[in-house]
Amino acid sequence: MLYLVQMDVRIPDGADPALVERRRVEERARSQELQRSGEWRHLWRVAGRYANVSVFDVADHARLHEVLSTLPLFPWMAITVTPLTDHPSALPS
Amino acid sequence: MLYLVQMDVRIPDGADPALVERRRVEERARSQELQRSGEWRHLWRVAGRYANVSVFDVADHARLHEVLSTLPLFPWMAITVTPLTDHPSALPS
Amino acid sequence: MLYLVQMDVRIPDGADPALVERRRVEERARSQELQRSGEWRHLWRVAGRYANVSVFDVADHARLHEVLSTLPLFPWMAITVTPLTDHPSALPS
Amino acid sequence: MLYLVQMDVRIPDGADPALVERRRVEERARSQELQRSGEWRHLWRVAGRYANVSVFDVADHARLHEVLSTLPLFPWMAITVTPLTDHPSALPS
Amino acid sequence: MLYLVQMDVRIPDGADPALVERRRVEERARSQELQRSGEWRHLWRVAGRYANVSVFDVADHARLHEVLSTLPLFPWMAITVTPLTDHPSALPS
Amino acid sequence: MLYLVQMDVRIPDGADPALVERRRVEERARSQELQRSGEWRHLWRVAGRYANVSVFDVADHARLHEVLSTLPLFPWMAITVTPLTDHPSALPS
Amino acid sequence: MLYLVQMDVRIPDGADPALVERRRVEERARSQELQRSGEWRHLWRVAGRYANVSVFDVADHARLHEVLSTLPLFPWMAITVTPLTDHPSALPS
Amino acid sequence: MLYLVQMDVRIPDGADPALVERRRVEERARSQELQRSGEWRHLWRVAGRYANVSVFDVADHARLHEVLSTLPLFPWMAITVTPLTDHPSALPS
Amino acid sequence: MLYLVQMDVRIPDGADPALVERRRVEERARSQELQRSGEWRHLWRVAGRYANVSVFDVADHARLHEVLSTLPLFPWMAITVTPLTDHPSALPS
Amino acid sequence: MLYLVQMDVRIPDGADPALVERRRVEERARSQELQRSGEWRHLWRVAGRYANVSVFDVADHARLHEVLSTLPLFPWMAITVTPLTDHPSALPS
Repeated sequence: MLYLVQMDVRIPDGADPALVERRRVEERARSQELQRSGEWRHLWRVAGRYANVSVFDVADHARLHEVLSTLPLFPWMAITVTPLTDHPSALPS
Repeated sequence: MLYLVQMDVRIPDGADPALVERRRVEERARSQELQRSGEWRHLWRVAGRYANVSVFDVADHARLHEVLSTLPLFPWMAITVTPLTDHPSALPS
Repeated sequence: MLYLVQMDVRIPDGADPALVERRRVEERARSQELQRSGEWRHLWRVAGRYANVSVFDVADHARLHEVLSTLPLFPWMAITVTPLTDHPSALPS
Repeated sequence: MLYLVQMDVRIPDGADPALVERRRVEERARSQELQRSGEWRHLWRVAGRYANVSVFDVADHARLHEVLSTLPLFPWMAITVTPLTDHPSALPS
Repeated sequence: MLYLVQMDVRIPDGADPALVERRRVEERARSQELQRSGEWRHLWRVAGRYANVSVFDVADHARLHEVLSTLPLFPWMAITVTPLTDHPSALPS
Repeated sequence: MLYLVQMDVRIPDGADPALVERRRVEERARSQELQRSGEWRHLWRVAGRYANVSVFDVADHARLHEVLSTLPLFPWMAITVTPLTDHPSALPS
Repeated sequence: MLYLVQMDVRIPDGADPALVERRRVEERARSQELQRSGEWRHLWRVAGRYANVSVFDVADHARLHEVLSTLPLFPWMAITVTPLTDHPSALPS
Repeated sequence: MLYLVQMDVRIPDGADPALVERRRVEERARSQELQRSGEWRHLWRVAGRYANVSVFDVADHARLHEVLSTLPLFPWMAITVTPLTDHPSALPS
Repeated sequence: MLYLVQMDVRIPDGADPALVERRRVEERARSQELQRSGEWRHLWRVAGRYANVSVFDVADHARLHEVLSTLPLFPWMAITVTPLTDHPSALPS
Repeated sequence: MLYLVQMDVRIPDGADPALVERRRVEERARSQELQRSGEWRHLWRVAGRYANVSVFDVADHARLHEVLSTLPLFPWMAITVTPLTDHPSALPS
């Protein structure tokens, strides 16, 4: 099951820099773990913004929620989720 | 150069059904031609809506505009374009 | 898989009343067929508006799109889709 | 009387973690009490967000307000309320 | 049960003037009938716009929907509904 | 002169609870004083939100501003004002 | 009583040019009549748009509504109304 | 050159009251100085809100920016600017 | 005086193709005339949309309105205008 | 490759004035360095707001992101990016 996910990160004004750095490092590690497992299929940076556009390929909604809600930067992210399906004009990849 | 493109189609209320059908057929053919050339890299349907989410990989902005503005359904589409770059946490694909 | 679906109907200004009536009758029949199959689990009217709030329980995104995009009133509806999962505080129903 | 209620939770940046945890525990207990009484009829998680979609079945507007405004997380929630009625195409459940 | 209802009227560009006039006359008659019955408790014009602000006092959501959806101008109105309850600081009227 | 006024209250995250309580008590007293004088003609709670819908009947814009801007909770409220007039279909009350 | 009024004009796509011209001429005449009477105190064009910003000085809300709703272009205008009062820092004019 | 300027003031939650008071006094003095020079031609309070609607008459965009950006309350204001011109139906004032 | 102007073109659904073509040709000619005179200083296409971003350098607001409101495609454009000034960090060009 | 970039700066309420000043000085220096290199082609102030409108001419999306995300004021800016191409009616500059 495919989902387009857009994540905008906003670090709170008074956040502790050490906490921010630790969460960023953990986010990166977790993201790569999920990419290797194939669940985080695409990950792009939005040019000019602290945001990403991603495509997830997970078993179901519950798994998507588990994955997103445990990301280290989750408390600081605004997230939108769009369910995607095969397009009738898409060629087999 | 990568671009996230979201296209929402709205057929005008009084459109001639034959015209609508012809444009849809042409759109499909053109879309597949661009997929085969590698410029229309991803094409997904948004579940529940007459809309798609796509990723284009084209030489530059001018080529993106040329490709989108000559789509047969272009006059009936609302389009948003988001430039994408490599994400520092993305693994090599 | 559960989805919250909100459908707002807007009949075009000059629509043929016979066409409108036929689609409404077909919509009702199709809706009840899907309720009986268990895929259209809940269907409520939004008080004061020509709109409904529904919960679908379908196999996957592709089936949701198939069901929604073939509704007789689909061309006249604005639709929003929200994927739902079990809530950790929800009691077994 | 049925109401669709959507609740988005936003924990303030500098909130005391112990206070947050206590309110979450209380919210869960209160939510389950209301589910058992039948007033909080449905409770779903919105996939990917700290938010829920619920259906309440209460005596009237006053009771709905009493229930929502005394939730432990109420001060941190953005809430929308939509009155629902029976849909003419709905089958008896 | 009290509801704040805001109705904005938009006559379609090509509407038949005789139809518009007939619906306006019927709307007025129906509105006064509901005011006399006590269900349409308040009716005000929004200064400078073809719109009204109303307060309805009806038995339940189903009755509100029945009343609003059978108004002669309903097909041309955008309607918002807000459930109201007694305010703890309000004096008995 | 009638005005529909909608007030949404948002208590700042770190507000002193004693200050909040004092302003609430003062707000209630001031509100009842204005209701008794006839200027705050209607006051309803919006079900499920820390907000009210009110109708004021005051001499002019200047008096409306004087009344609203001196409410104890004014610094924490988002306010919208809509001028109302008699509706041609309204029955004499 | 002062009101800031913003009017955006949108001529319907298929409007009869003779009707449009007649309404424009009548609008101009009516506007100047109201300027001479002192009720339409200021009238400015919004640079680059078919819109104006105006200040009306009328007896009350009812008169404002009477004036605006009988403008020849009223059916084609989107109007916003903002009640204005004296500013405590304003010098006597 | 005329500009419609709308200024909404939002005092930060934890602002020092002495600083707020000082800026308000300075703002008032500066505002009156600009009114006397003829550049701040109109200044009205928006009824019910901590906001004003103004008309400036200044030499050019650069002067408008100089005037607005040096207002004592500028850091706490949300400002919108609309360029105005003579309206063809306006009478000579 | 510099202005950022964004123009979005929307051809009405039933527009006569000959009229559309004629206006496009006239728009192009008029645009180039204004570019040669130096008043339409920059003109760019928004990639993927029937829209442009422009910078005008004209004498004042009145001239800007005269130029924009007489463009052949003006009746079909949604226009936004933003006044620009020199930036203190900009180098002399 | 050309990009329209709009940057709105919002200094956090409690920011250290020395930090703000240092970042402003660094921003100015960095901005001028990029103007000299030709990548920051245009830089204008939005009249009346702490914001700028810019046109960048950079090699690709990745370079745009590198340039913007390393600006000293980046953490305090809301940024929008619009890809621009040559307009068919534009004269050679």
